[in-house]
Amino acid sequence: MLIEAILKRHSVRAYEDRKVKDEFLKEVLEAGRIAPSAANIQPWKFVVVQDKELRKQLVKACENQKFVGEAPVVIAGCMVSKGYHMGGFYDSAILDIGIALDHMTLQAASIGLGTCWIGAFTESQVKKLLQIPETVRVAALLALGYPKNPLVPKKLRKHIDEVVSYEKFS
Amino acid sequence: MLIEAILKRHSVRAYEDRKVKDEFLKEVLEAGRIAPSAANIQPWKFVVVQDKELRKQLVKACENQKFVGEAPVVIAGCMVSKGYHMGGFYDSAILDIGIALDHMTLQAASIGLGTCWIGAFTESQVKKLLQIPETVRVAALLALGYPKNPLVPKKLRKHIDEVVSYEKFS
Repeated sequence: MLIEAILKRHSVRAYEDRKVKDEFLKEVLEAGRIAPSAANIQPWKFVVVQDKELRKQLVKACENQKFVGEAPVVIAGCMVSKGYHMGGFYDSAILDIGIALDHMTLQAASIGLGTCWIGAFTESQVKKLLQIPETVRVAALLALGYPKNPLVPKKLRKHIDEVVSYEKFS
Repeated sequence: MLIEAILKRHSVRAYEDRKVKDEFLKEVLEAGRIAPSAANIQPWKFVVVQDKELRKQLVKACENQKFVGEAPVVIAGCMVSKGYHMGGFYDSAILDIGIALDHMTLQAASIGLGTCWIGAFTESQVKKLLQIPETVRVAALLALGYPKNPLVPKKLRKHIDEVVSYEKFS
């Protein structure tokens, strides 16, 4: 079932003009809330945008990607604190928020909703629109809604032998 | 079912001394292989360590965490290329690998296996042991095996009202 959800999830850029049921939105947010994070710091906060006017303004902040204004929900994944110092060389916060957002996409897929990661955005503009404080960073945004086309599994990944080796790197 | 796997997954630091069935290991790796990544770059490679001697040597490289040598499998998540430039200010590769490793932990939980994220490690030592090239970085390691104690859901997360706001950050 997990594998099925992972396979079904893909970037949906065409949405029906229809509000997401509160119950579904709750489930999606819950999958993010219960995500793990390094040292359980939970360095995140999620801003859920449903207001039509605000979503339209987000389009410009997201490099004019039209679907950002068409999806009934846009979620901004915000980094509100530092995370754990991983491997002595990087902070886990971005990774942690990525996992939480990923869980949201999987839960959405498992109940037939579409999502799309938004990595092309101008952070300063998003922050201004959503009144996000100076010290908080925006890791990524997600579009969420009913997909115009059914979710079908895609197979666009490298072969397992390309990405896994045993006992040593090769 | 997804929610169940997320809730069941927690850090397992006590493992049975028993090889993980090949079929199970395959399923876990598959959940990582099919993970999404920004622009589908798949900037990852996973080194699977089962050799007992090598696992023992990894203990020292992982700040002497004993369970690293006791778990029958240790997986190193390696970053072999840059990812996508997210929000104009960071590279997605670490986030991408985090999602792939997270999928492995969820798949493991869903078939009754335990995992533990390892963020406390000395990268140079891990790289030397696994013959990882200079230019490749180690994002995190995972321990994997049969947990000594059954996986039971934990509830250690912030309340939803603490992590979600609507229309604006608050």
